[in-house]
Amino acid sequence: MAGNASVPGASVAQRLFRVLDTFDPAHGEMTLTEIAERADLPISTTRRLLQELTAWGGLERLVDNRFRVGIHLWQIGTLAPRQRDLRETALPLMHDLAKATQETVQVMVLDGLDALCVEKVSAARASPTATQVGGRLPLYATAVGKCLLAHSPRDLLVAVVERGLSRHTPHTLTQPGLLVRQLKEVRAAGVAYSREEMTLGAVSVAAPILSGGTLRGAIGIVVRAPGQLEALTPAVKTASLSIGRVIS
Amino acid sequence: MAGNASVPGASVAQRLFRVLDTFDPAHGEMTLTEIAERADLPISTTRRLLQELTAWGGLERLVDNRFRVGIHLWQIGTLAPRQRDLRETALPLMHDLAKATQETVQVMVLDGLDALCVEKVSAARASPTATQVGGRLPLYATAVGKCLLAHSPRDLLVAVVERGLSRHTPHTLTQPGLLVRQLKEVRAAGVAYSREEMTLGAVSVAAPILSGGTLRGAIGIVVRAPGQLEALTPAVKTASLSIGRVIS
Repeated sequence: MAGNASVPGASVAQRLFRVLDTFDPAHGEMTLTEIAERADLPISTTRRLLQELTAWGGLERLVDNRFRVGIHLWQIGTLAPRQRDLRETALPLMHDLAKATQETVQVMVLDGLDALCVEKVSAARASPTATQVGGRLPLYATAVGKCLLAHSPRDLLVAVVERGLSRHTPHTLTQPGLLVRQLKEVRAAGVAYSREEMTLGAVSVAAPILSGGTLRGAIGIVVRAPGQLEALTPAVKTASLSIGRVIS
Repeated sequence: MAGNASVPGASVAQRLFRVLDTFDPAHGEMTLTEIAERADLPISTTRRLLQELTAWGGLERLVDNRFRVGIHLWQIGTLAPRQRDLRETALPLMHDLAKATQETVQVMVLDGLDALCVEKVSAARASPTATQVGGRLPLYATAVGKCLLAHSPRDLLVAVVERGLSRHTPHTLTQPGLLVRQLKEVRAAGVAYSREEMTLGAVSVAAPILSGGTLRGAIGIVVRAPGQLEALTPAVKTASLSIGRVIS
């Protein structure tokens, strides 16, 4: 396909994807100018692509001329089997776990070098957490992430270390050697912990969801009281085993 | 944008959307040939578009060369505010309602001439229902749909009637006059019923979710025993009012 003068080599499809990729939880509604800037595309190209996306229903145009993701795109996305099977199987157990612990339960899957949240269930009185459904977390600084990393090919660990272990709190594991040792413990124990490594004041415990030996995701609980982690470990492990056994 | 010989007037973006739109709950995994056929596009065009979609992550290619919707498309879709705000607000109440009734609770929004399911919660022992998250139901034959129809501009009713009131069971309302009368009752009572109008053996009660006078969706319970509908009505109305009051 022909390239565009301002974006050498980019096809129409790639420019379209670039427009869609400007949307994230922090950029949910944007003007034409903002989208063009974030997509690094000319205004005229962006306007034409936005018209096509809006006509299709992938984006919606608001009365103030800002754009947001449309329900048609959401609908197609719900068909993604990797999240769909997992969340349908996990959801009842997540609710039981959230209710029993009065905390926040998350199920994450691997997506590139990150953990991606496919479902989150919070009890009414749970401490607020930053993660949203569709949001990302680093693999090396979270309990769910360490589960995913520990049960993936070593290439992933290498890539994560090469990208750099950024410090989120003073407790983040930024030394590759320490991380490698912890991942070995995670594999042996079948459970991972994060002790204020991602957010100060928040600790978590997680277990991998394995089905027939294949990694499908990880389930974790986030709490404020570090003393509770040990007590919650059996509940999280049990939930992960139940989901793994049932998931198709 | 230039058209394509086989699809006169269709732009690259439109052909891309046509490929994505071939996926639905009954067509979750397809080969190149199946997608090309359903999209009514040449194989060569389809192959190129599939390559671009797969490279982006919108679709995933399986080892058997079939394609399915990818988690990246799901992730962008989660940003759609119309479903996101509603499901986040409704989910805890839906679980309470499902647990209390041991049945299936659904939250739907208006999408074109259909009701679109944004969330569904089933109790462990609930009777199975056909609707899935992301699935569609007719507005005139379901309790949730009648709520959406009753609180929408009259143009929608006209369009729904013009498309035709297909008979799903012997109890489906196929006479426009009857439907108009029922919708008036729905507005007056603040609640709608479907008595085996969509599926034989399944009855449901639903209430509209209104926030500041604006229709945001509808919540309904599907049960097998017609005698339970009256008893469930206050619970459904209460849930719809709570969601409407809290939703941003």
